[in-house]
Amino acid sequence: MPLVHIVIALAVLQFFWFGMQVGRARVRFGVPAPAISGNPDFERVFRVQANTLELLVLFLPGIWMFGTYLSPRWAAGLGIVYLIGRFLYARGYARAANQRGLGYGLSALPALVLVVGGLVGAVRALSLF
Amino acid sequence: MPLVHIVIALAVLQFFWFGMQVGRARVRFGVPAPAISGNPDFERVFRVQANTLELLVLFLPGIWMFGTYLSPRWAAGLGIVYLIGRFLYARGYARAANQRGLGYGLSALPALVLVVGGLVGAVRALSLF
Amino acid sequence: MPLVHIVIALAVLQFFWFGMQVGRARVRFGVPAPAISGNPDFERVFRVQANTLELLVLFLPGIWMFGTYLSPRWAAGLGIVYLIGRFLYARGYARAANQRGLGYGLSALPALVLVVGGLVGAVRALSLF
Repeated sequence: MPLVHIVIALAVLQFFWFGMQVGRARVRFGVPAPAISGNPDFERVFRVQANTLELLVLFLPGIWMFGTYLSPRWAAGLGIVYLIGRFLYARGYARAANQRGLGYGLSALPALVLVVGGLVGAVRALSLF
Repeated sequence: MPLVHIVIALAVLQFFWFGMQVGRARVRFGVPAPAISGNPDFERVFRVQANTLELLVLFLPGIWMFGTYLSPRWAAGLGIVYLIGRFLYARGYARAANQRGLGYGLSALPALVLVVGGLVGAVRALSLF
Repeated sequence: MPLVHIVIALAVLQFFWFGMQVGRARVRFGVPAPAISGNPDFERVFRVQANTLELLVLFLPGIWMFGTYLSPRWAAGLGIVYLIGRFLYARGYARAANQRGLGYGLSALPALVLVVGGLVGAVRALSLF
């Protein structure tokens, strides 16, 4: 499982980096804390972080369960697709709201596959014992 | 623990479904991304997802610790109460802000019991070794 | 690892307490649900909770991996620094936005150390097997 743990660490560090972009966007677009709205350019950078948080709640238990019940290598591989998808999502969404589709799909889909695969693995393990 | 893992997978899939309702509410109530305010009907659906995220951060480590230290069966049972409570919360809150109380209690309470139970179990394990 | 699990339980209970402060601030500053903006005093209390959620996504996998690969005692110690840092962050930010710096650093830094330490531990474990 170290491979899975490495991808988990990279995913939360990527998320931290998205948070730093929100801090920079606060200065750049003039939206001081605690406000989270008022400028659409800021709001898109803010939504990158918020949406990634929403997806990490699926991704983290999913990659752990998929790695435990099915395959650590496939879990890590799907995790790398997720990392690339989130990078494309962040880059696209920072430009325009309608450029977030591809990156969203490339990160939400592997997260869902990890959760559903982990669920299937857990159901199978339950019926074995 | 497979029983606990199944409930974990169901809880994050329920959360993903709440996220899809936010996407649908964006279209239905005319609140395009990245905005997250402007229409109270949209905002209530949005808050269902956000509040569930806040509760999952207690629920996920809680059910895992409760299952590890006390009982996987009781952990899974409390998890199913949480799932039902969150369903009632989402249905009630989508209708009106004052209809979210019952579902909130039925999901926040089991989440708290799982965390406090897990804490008690960990303290007990510490004093054993 | 029970020591690490105790700190995990305390961290999510602290987060739940921040959530209760948001509920109280809703009443005190007249911002009924589902609104999350409109009064800067409310917004700062709200941001304490939201920012803590963002940091917990690093802290929780980080403390677990650091405890698993490096040292449960050091993981728990860094976790206690995080708990104190978050307390100072919440107290400072509730007063004024410019009083959140010290507490932010004292909680974000240990969270980052936990994740990076866990990543180093996982990479080392990978090359051993």
